[in-house]
Amino acid sequence: MSQGDVQKALETFGQLDQKISHFKELLSLANWDLHTGAPKKGRSLRSKAIGTLSSEVFQLSLSTEMGKCLDTLSDPDIQAQLDEVVRAKVRLYKRHYNKSKQIPPEEYQAYVVLTSQAQDVWIEAKTKKDFSIFRETLKKIVDFNKKFIDYYGYKDHPYDALLDEYEPGLTVQTLDQLFGDLRTKTIDLLERIQSSGNHPRTEIFHQRFDIKQQEAFSLFVLPKLGYDLEAGRLDVSAHPFATGLNTGDVRITTRYMENDMRSAIFGTIHECGHALYEQGVNPEFEGTILCGGTSMGIHESQSRFLENMVGRSFEFWTYFFDDLKRFFPEQFQDVSVEDFGRAVNTVEPSLIRVEADELTYNLHIMIRYEIEKELMAGELEVDDLPAVWNQKMEEYLGITPPDDAQGVLQDVHWSFGGFGYFPSYSLGNLYAAQILHTIRQDMPDFYEKVQNGEFLPIREWLRENIHQYGKLYTPNELIKKVTGEELNAKYLIDYFEEKYSKVYQL
Amino acid sequence: MSQGDVQKALETFGQLDQKISHFKELLSLANWDLHTGAPKKGRSLRSKAIGTLSSEVFQLSLSTEMGKCLDTLSDPDIQAQLDEVVRAKVRLYKRHYNKSKQIPPEEYQAYVVLTSQAQDVWIEAKTKKDFSIFRETLKKIVDFNKKFIDYYGYKDHPYDALLDEYEPGLTVQTLDQLFGDLRTKTIDLLERIQSSGNHPRTEIFHQRFDIKQQEAFSLFVLPKLGYDLEAGRLDVSAHPFATGLNTGDVRITTRYMENDMRSAIFGTIHECGHALYEQGVNPEFEGTILCGGTSMGIHESQSRFLENMVGRSFEFWTYFFDDLKRFFPEQFQDVSVEDFGRAVNTVEPSLIRVEADELTYNLHIMIRYEIEKELMAGELEVDDLPAVWNQKMEEYLGITPPDDAQGVLQDVHWSFGGFGYFPSYSLGNLYAAQILHTIRQDMPDFYEKVQNGEFLPIREWLRENIHQYGKLYTPNELIKKVTGEELNAKYLIDYFEEKYSKVYQL
Repeated sequence: MSQGDVQKALETFGQLDQKISHFKELLSLANWDLHTGAPKKGRSLRSKAIGTLSSEVFQLSLSTEMGKCLDTLSDPDIQAQLDEVVRAKVRLYKRHYNKSKQIPPEEYQAYVVLTSQAQDVWIEAKTKKDFSIFRETLKKIVDFNKKFIDYYGYKDHPYDALLDEYEPGLTVQTLDQLFGDLRTKTIDLLERIQSSGNHPRTEIFHQRFDIKQQEAFSLFVLPKLGYDLEAGRLDVSAHPFATGLNTGDVRITTRYMENDMRSAIFGTIHECGHALYEQGVNPEFEGTILCGGTSMGIHESQSRFLENMVGRSFEFWTYFFDDLKRFFPEQFQDVSVEDFGRAVNTVEPSLIRVEADELTYNLHIMIRYEIEKELMAGELEVDDLPAVWNQKMEEYLGITPPDDAQGVLQDVHWSFGGFGYFPSYSLGNLYAAQILHTIRQDMPDFYEKVQNGEFLPIREWLRENIHQYGKLYTPNELIKKVTGEELNAKYLIDYFEEKYSKVYQL
Repeated sequence: MSQGDVQKALETFGQLDQKISHFKELLSLANWDLHTGAPKKGRSLRSKAIGTLSSEVFQLSLSTEMGKCLDTLSDPDIQAQLDEVVRAKVRLYKRHYNKSKQIPPEEYQAYVVLTSQAQDVWIEAKTKKDFSIFRETLKKIVDFNKKFIDYYGYKDHPYDALLDEYEPGLTVQTLDQLFGDLRTKTIDLLERIQSSGNHPRTEIFHQRFDIKQQEAFSLFVLPKLGYDLEAGRLDVSAHPFATGLNTGDVRITTRYMENDMRSAIFGTIHECGHALYEQGVNPEFEGTILCGGTSMGIHESQSRFLENMVGRSFEFWTYFFDDLKRFFPEQFQDVSVEDFGRAVNTVEPSLIRVEADELTYNLHIMIRYEIEKELMAGELEVDDLPAVWNQKMEEYLGITPPDDAQGVLQDVHWSFGGFGYFPSYSLGNLYAAQILHTIRQDMPDFYEKVQNGEFLPIREWLRENIHQYGKLYTPNELIKKVTGEELNAKYLIDYFEEKYSKVYQL
């Protein structure tokens, strides 16, 4: 191959990358708008416009032109000449190209149609608390995923092919190990907590909290944590999210509940963690595929780190409690910072994943993980899901859902075909604890800093070690680079032990 | 040509049209966002993404595929088989295709770069009140436009080629006639007004008006005028605008000045007029080029109609004045509805077009029209603009700008190359008055309806006669269809005579 050919491939590849990235930026904006302030009557039409641009992106990433560039730039001799940045871009596009090319276009199209309609079916089923309404649709989605697994191929376990979508390189073997260790310790801790007889004062959260004041408090906390409000904004949506349009425009949403102030404040801190990641990506990656988080799990580690390791620490509230009382003088008159710090760390088995506490949360994930794994291996049928779900809830958490809406139908994920997605949430916790361990070694006064409100050095550490790289490294490369070892459950287990010993005086 | 070929061309044409329309919808959304709430640091990057999708739209509309479709569907035999809707679409795309194809791509590219940089140069010149800073840039823009005129071709006057961009079919001959009649009457009226010795109580506007209350009043008025808030929203921007993303999502912006309530309320009513047009387009045109206003002038007629013919009428304030007093009880304690109705119709020659009253506004437009016409005919040089501007201001309005910022540099239009744009504003007034004449014949109790707050029948009339058609008819076809005659200045002249006789007791 001549140098001219390589040069030309690099140029075309760069142009395609930029076009795709720019289109994706506009798609993210349109989706943000749909979930924040878009007027009701324009939404279904807007979705069509979004669909048109999405297919354009899909077609560009699978175009003949892209295929040729990837061919040229994947040649081992050429690879050796490329810098790390271009190699990473080629890896990412190639991964998507190779996987997507396996699926016959007409099957993919049928799947897109199916999953776009499935959400309404799921909503109806959930509203009517009747799994049977969703059952046949879910079967079709599962069947499609099984076919995709065959197209993609896998080494050890069929489910590996789907896990890889969300966390490149992740396997059942790894997860079984991680979740095995974590489960034993979680259940042990849960028993000790439940028999400790200690009950944090959670009733303090259930008072009337003016929504304007909640918003003002969120906007007070965000910049202190290092979120740049000139490169973002805070809005309201039904489900909080963060979306990075570019590094100068990373938006957060939260939701305000008048009778529980936790929802807004921890939602805001959580999304702030996601947002700091995207605000911190190397500006040179702007307008390329590298501009974003490297995986769902690493992304979630940044939000969980800020929400839980920082935001639920006693030190955090030692710093912020006087401010909180300033915003809500009546509600916390007779509450001490210790009461408050314990109350935000209450552990209590519950039915709904998104409302679960930090400790039992992972049990909810394990239930979903096991179900998905068995479904994809053909060891479990869709018909049996409600019974299996309830049985596992009883086994892991000691409670049985009174109906499917609070059980197997609670999450949206399966309706859009997101099999393999759930484990990322727990991976986030695991990564976060491992990163916490490293940062505390580098910065022994970490929690003193939190207590003094010195959040900027912490953000800088994260930016320096994680955020700036965007998607340059795979999650596995990154966690090794940052912490010096592979992901393991030890650090999360230690963290839980330390936290709950304090909270519940175990 | 076989029926199969025609069928295929229709299909491809439909797909291209939908794709372009969907892309434009997302571009409009991104531009709305840029001008409302986009965070500062993300804006320049967002502009690049907007640039990428804009070129895609441009390329699609000039693609070989589009050219072939237009060729096929323009064939007279085929045209005869097409329905009115498809014929209109072909006309619109063909117009753009033929014009744009005249310009060599590298020249167009250079022009895009020039005009994208020119705005900053203009801002600097305006800030420093120094025309010479902008002069050389403006010369280049004028030269480009002269070349474009040669590429486009014209019959009678070079400027016709540019007028046609904003108002298809409009010529210097027509405008000279319209503006000639209007100018004589305006100057006559202005003299009578100035010598009448009557002075409406304009000081009532210069009090402190709480911005939250101004916003609440805008949101109170909008739905009464027929604006559907479930198919739109009201935001704030530096310069008010309306943008139709689709018929279910037509957004308005306004701006609030604490020391003058007119800016917000009349800005809101004006943009509401634009928005009613786009909310009222036939939903079957959704996702096609027909979905929007047929020309700048007709669009402006809808905003001016609502702002001036309706919103500045005594009847309008007879209906709304008690409400206004409810929102601002202190400010209007000793003001009568007659005082208020006269004050919102004050005539006073002034320097700045966007702040001009309804009568003198057209004189500002005529000055720009004459200058542009002479520039494009080579009868005037850019170097002479400041002097000519000031001389015409003195001649038409009896005042001379103290500096270029308040003179020749006041408008943004020339910096983006918008030669031919200004006349649309006055055309809007002319169309609006002619439409008012027709509606009052159809609906003799028109102003009684306004006085009783019955705005919905008025909106329905406009929807039925104008809005629903979108771009189906050319502006000329439309005005004849609605009013039975060609556009002429008589109705605006009559309207002014009627209004100012009342306001100034002439």
